[in-house]
Amino acid sequence: MKITVLAIWLISVCPLWAVAAEISPETGECLDCHRSVSPGIVSDWEKSRHAGVSPAEAMKKPSLERRVSLSKAPEGMDRVVVGCAECHTISPETHKDTFEHAGHKVHVVVSPKDCSSCHPAEFTQFGQNIMAHAYGNLEHNPVYQDLVASTNGIQSFINMNTAFRPPDEETKADSCYSCHGTVVAVKGMKKRDTSLGEMEFPVLSGWPNQGVGRVNPDGSTGACTACHTRHQFAIEMARKPYTCSQCHKGPDVPAYKVYEVSKHGNIYSSLESHWEFNSVPWILGKDITAPTCAACHVSLVVNNEGEVVADRTHRMNDRLPWRMMGLIYAHPHPVSPDTAIIKNKAGLPLPTELTGEPASGYLIDSQEQEKRRAAMQKICLSCHSHEWVEGHWARFENTIRATNEMTLAATNIVVSAWEKGAARGLVQKDSIFNEAIEKKWVEQWLFFANSTRFASAMLGADYGVFANGRWYMSKNIQEMADWLDFKLDMLKPEEKH
Amino acid sequence: MKITVLAIWLISVCPLWAVAAEISPETGECLDCHRSVSPGIVSDWEKSRHAGVSPAEAMKKPSLERRVSLSKAPEGMDRVVVGCAECHTISPETHKDTFEHAGHKVHVVVSPKDCSSCHPAEFTQFGQNIMAHAYGNLEHNPVYQDLVASTNGIQSFINMNTAFRPPDEETKADSCYSCHGTVVAVKGMKKRDTSLGEMEFPVLSGWPNQGVGRVNPDGSTGACTACHTRHQFAIEMARKPYTCSQCHKGPDVPAYKVYEVSKHGNIYSSLESHWEFNSVPWILGKDITAPTCAACHVSLVVNNEGEVVADRTHRMNDRLPWRMMGLIYAHPHPVSPDTAIIKNKAGLPLPTELTGEPASGYLIDSQEQEKRRAAMQKICLSCHSHEWVEGHWARFENTIRATNEMTLAATNIVVSAWEKGAARGLVQKDSIFNEAIEKKWVEQWLFFANSTRFASAMLGADYGVFANGRWYMSKNIQEMADWLDFKLDMLKPEEKH
Amino acid sequence: MKITVLAIWLISVCPLWAVAAEISPETGECLDCHRSVSPGIVSDWEKSRHAGVSPAEAMKKPSLERRVSLSKAPEGMDRVVVGCAECHTISPETHKDTFEHAGHKVHVVVSPKDCSSCHPAEFTQFGQNIMAHAYGNLEHNPVYQDLVASTNGIQSFINMNTAFRPPDEETKADSCYSCHGTVVAVKGMKKRDTSLGEMEFPVLSGWPNQGVGRVNPDGSTGACTACHTRHQFAIEMARKPYTCSQCHKGPDVPAYKVYEVSKHGNIYSSLESHWEFNSVPWILGKDITAPTCAACHVSLVVNNEGEVVADRTHRMNDRLPWRMMGLIYAHPHPVSPDTAIIKNKAGLPLPTELTGEPASGYLIDSQEQEKRRAAMQKICLSCHSHEWVEGHWARFENTIRATNEMTLAATNIVVSAWEKGAARGLVQKDSIFNEAIEKKWVEQWLFFANSTRFASAMLGADYGVFANGRWYMSKNIQEMADWLDFKLDMLKPEEKH
Repeated sequence: MKITVLAIWLISVCPLWAVAAEISPETGECLDCHRSVSPGIVSDWEKSRHAGVSPAEAMKKPSLERRVSLSKAPEGMDRVVVGCAECHTISPETHKDTFEHAGHKVHVVVSPKDCSSCHPAEFTQFGQNIMAHAYGNLEHNPVYQDLVASTNGIQSFINMNTAFRPPDEETKADSCYSCHGTVVAVKGMKKRDTSLGEMEFPVLSGWPNQGVGRVNPDGSTGACTACHTRHQFAIEMARKPYTCSQCHKGPDVPAYKVYEVSKHGNIYSSLESHWEFNSVPWILGKDITAPTCAACHVSLVVNNEGEVVADRTHRMNDRLPWRMMGLIYAHPHPVSPDTAIIKNKAGLPLPTELTGEPASGYLIDSQEQEKRRAAMQKICLSCHSHEWVEGHWARFENTIRATNEMTLAATNIVVSAWEKGAARGLVQKDSIFNEAIEKKWVEQWLFFANSTRFASAMLGADYGVFANGRWYMSKNIQEMADWLDFKLDMLKPEEKH
Repeated sequence: MKITVLAIWLISVCPLWAVAAEISPETGECLDCHRSVSPGIVSDWEKSRHAGVSPAEAMKKPSLERRVSLSKAPEGMDRVVVGCAECHTISPETHKDTFEHAGHKVHVVVSPKDCSSCHPAEFTQFGQNIMAHAYGNLEHNPVYQDLVASTNGIQSFINMNTAFRPPDEETKADSCYSCHGTVVAVKGMKKRDTSLGEMEFPVLSGWPNQGVGRVNPDGSTGACTACHTRHQFAIEMARKPYTCSQCHKGPDVPAYKVYEVSKHGNIYSSLESHWEFNSVPWILGKDITAPTCAACHVSLVVNNEGEVVADRTHRMNDRLPWRMMGLIYAHPHPVSPDTAIIKNKAGLPLPTELTGEPASGYLIDSQEQEKRRAAMQKICLSCHSHEWVEGHWARFENTIRATNEMTLAATNIVVSAWEKGAARGLVQKDSIFNEAIEKKWVEQWLFFANSTRFASAMLGADYGVFANGRWYMSKNIQEMADWLDFKLDMLKPEEKH
Repeated sequence: MKITVLAIWLISVCPLWAVAAEISPETGECLDCHRSVSPGIVSDWEKSRHAGVSPAEAMKKPSLERRVSLSKAPEGMDRVVVGCAECHTISPETHKDTFEHAGHKVHVVVSPKDCSSCHPAEFTQFGQNIMAHAYGNLEHNPVYQDLVASTNGIQSFINMNTAFRPPDEETKADSCYSCHGTVVAVKGMKKRDTSLGEMEFPVLSGWPNQGVGRVNPDGSTGACTACHTRHQFAIEMARKPYTCSQCHKGPDVPAYKVYEVSKHGNIYSSLESHWEFNSVPWILGKDITAPTCAACHVSLVVNNEGEVVADRTHRMNDRLPWRMMGLIYAHPHPVSPDTAIIKNKAGLPLPTELTGEPASGYLIDSQEQEKRRAAMQKICLSCHSHEWVEGHWARFENTIRATNEMTLAATNIVVSAWEKGAARGLVQKDSIFNEAIEKKWVEQWLFFANSTRFASAMLGADYGVFANGRWYMSKNIQEMADWLDFKLDMLKPEEKH
């Protein structure tokens, strides 16, 4: 008992960071050359927590303060800091990109599986997160493939008609798959003259890439570095909204833009210089006076008395009752993170019918929705009253219904165009995304309805009206209807009024 | 005499903040529970100046340093810090949302009237500010109501025609009225189980809302918290441009976006970490080396020698000769902040005719314009020469004329469409905002002409050309003319050339 | 020898800044009045390095640490700090805006020639930079003049047709020439009552302006203050991306917007509060952990061991193999910064044919391209492996080809429109930018292809898809083709199918 008390006292008082953490001999060898070969990342790493703490030390923290979720430090790695060799030479046989380098078996791409040596809970959670499946969910869904191709393909204009060539791999890696993740594979080896003589390195396809759903040479999916940026891996950075904005800022996912004009974003931008971004757990009101993306969706958040308000989760849909982006209609969140398995009644790989009716079998039920809603609202309630929170959510869920209705109007126009032969789509078994009228339909849901929902969910009302929201939903329907009028008139001159 | 000197010495030397300011017993009771019930806002409030200073102390500051404008501290409140009870239990009988709560008469919505106990001058000024009338100016103007409805209404597509349903209250509160302000009213009471047993709380309609023109349960209008964010009420935050950006960033009011690309905004973003945001008065050149929104429009600003460059004003149109946003043409600022009273010669509730001619009777005259121009220029002159300032203003006022001309061209197209029956509008006594061609006309003034004017006024030239300015004004006219050609051709096939 | 060692020791140890630098009597006179006449800029200047260091002291720094490039301090200026008089009274006879002011010959516009007294290398380099020619390159190119006029001209709608009036000078100065630079000329003198009695000041046309290609009253071109903002001239500011964003943020040059969503921008925004922006040279990894615009394009950057990674250059195209903005097709960078001399085979002042074929005689060859590519890649390699860098550049240069193809499709549509008489352009010797279909063509290259290229070059993939990139290239072609269909149908009703 006395020993426990002493241990607790030691842990709380002793500046663990000050204990000289040792760099492994292997990492020392890396640093010897790379300090001059790639000075930027070495200096960056030296500023990291990884460079100052060993897994064994990290494990000694009280439960709420721990940043590692391992129960036993990895063999041979427990007493040294987490350096180059610890990550880039782990389990060499499982990495297809392992190569002989200065007497070591080194791999280029550190994968979530590698990180799981010290962060197994995060690895498991993230694997259940829809983001970890971002590559497959795009690649194996024929409807999305039609969208990818019609967006990125090369068009030409020949004999007064547009012609189309599918996009090349480089373009795809540079666009959609940049965020969704590429397949990184070894396509050969290449000799190169270096300051230490000729050396051989693997040549990778799909590289570079830090997409959240990246398929790694060791077969694992995801890239922790998408958010935990190399080589400082600063929790400060993962907790700031700029990190999320890399992929969640465009009109298809304007989360960051909405946050920026929200009261929360306003507080963040104005006062964040007084905040504490490195403490674990994160204390609401003390460390931060408004949430960032991470506070609501990921981080372990406690109140001033150390009570947990929200558990840390890397399964970021844990508190999301609705999926409101990327698809034609907002709908209850899918059950499985693998959404390529979904099929609606019409046989399309979509979570709703073209009318908006949910493909319920694949989606969470209202009980699970309520559980997630309550988990999110618990965070809201740390600063807002029940009445406030209920008023806000009532508006948000009303917006879900209203934006779905506004999408249905646009869908009905495009379906009419297909039926009347004014455009070629589902009826003709043609691409549903390659013509101008179809692209306007896409903007109705992918941009405008979607932006309106984000604005409503995250209190950025300004963004949901004139910036990219209701104004455009309303205008787009009128323009689509006008186009259909003109086109039908052109097609049938004899019927002119 | 000696006593005065001593008093001045004491005031300037004595760390008034260090004097243990007392929390009232009532606020103490609030904190006892709310520290765990709503920990975020309690921690936030503890960081506020309100939590450390009593009104009596605040009054002792020399005139230029005062943050309160009261001449006598409110009865019973003078010796205690400004806590929960001081604001949420004041004048209970005047608040319709007052309810019995733990033995106290508490109201949910703290109103500008409540704040006026210590800040009466700001209350009075803000009441004369056009923003305080933002709700009524929108709600009681039939032209604006047409715009609100046609933007937020629900459309459908039936029998090859678009149909329309007016927007519901939740949508309106979530869009236009989010910034303009809702009517907050008590619609009933609701019992709720709490950690302290069953309690009853008022249920409010139009809640939550922090719009600048909010109509409060005590009948007052406005929400100080729109800019002075709960519960830290940091002057630092009100002075940073992010606060204004919550409502002034979209294409209809792109003030923040223009500021961002202006030289002023560039200086702010680059160097603000060296600035002082909490000092009163604010010293130009010393505390800040470029203006923020507040510096030009609101704050008390002095030079290094303590001379007043600009008085504090919460009547934010004090230095605005022109109203350049939200209406078809830029025009001299309205005389009354209540703009619902305006009627042009054609009988429309608009400050100009459809031709751009001002409804002069309702607008400030050139003498008042000159007075406001001079007040604003006095701030410019702290850093810029007379020649510089005159050159800048000449360009800005030239832009007012040019953008009004470019709007007139678009107006003439839409009026022609109405007259020729290509669209249904004023001529047909139909909505003037619900068809595609009408929406393009709206964008000409509400977005493009307007953005060009902001860019010109605030030195963000980049925004006024390709971002959302002259390029689009010019393109829009051509597209409107094309559409009218196509439509008239479709309507009258026999007349084809 | 011993003396040299002592000198080096002194230089490195002695706090040179602490040496009381003297203000010249002339500057002292300026300050006497201007401290109250224009307090903002005086306070700002007092915070500057100019206010604390004399040229002679600045020269004593070791080579890599020097901020001045002079070999001999200017006569009479060497021992005093760089104040008002040092810049505003230098070489009075060469400045047409010199005027008698309180007994001195003062000029209003400090020019790059003036700055070259202490910064001659930067002056020379900047003169060879394409930016220094931004005025002439726009003003003396008839194609660009067509774009300027059709964008900024005043349109009206009369007798069911649009009419056009060329833009006035104020509008041009307020739009394109705000960034490109105006011609600043003396148009007269004006007497003005001041607190010191009546005084006479020059009245300038084209003023105010800080455009990079400004033509100054002394005949020199450029404005150092475009980036080195008056009167603090903080290197911190020039190194932050907000400075570049003033001109490089709109859809025509979205460098800043792409940077913001890039990993580099994410690191900057999240961690820059820990960075050092004032050190010379700038140490990668230590001072900064990701590049800003300046780090890749301008600054002297070294590694931790003091080895130069990139030389300082104010000829900012030194590391740019491609020019990817502002013109119809991306192409190798022009040889001469004066691009008004370029003529393609068709006789147009354009660096490519309308088909995209480069006007090679005026453009750098592949050897020079490779040299510039290598110079840029050397910076990348400080943090990234060869494989990483090569993979990235392969994608970027693939994007150059793909976006040029997508532009060609749009060009072919607009050329068809001209040929068939659906629009009036090159074929008719009419403006090629004033009709709606032509403006859509312009957006294809000036906005969308261009944005896609920036996104690819600077790792902001999100921006290159839905924000303003591939989605719009693809949609725009379909809309242009639709328009041409409708128009031809309208023109030739007898040919209807």
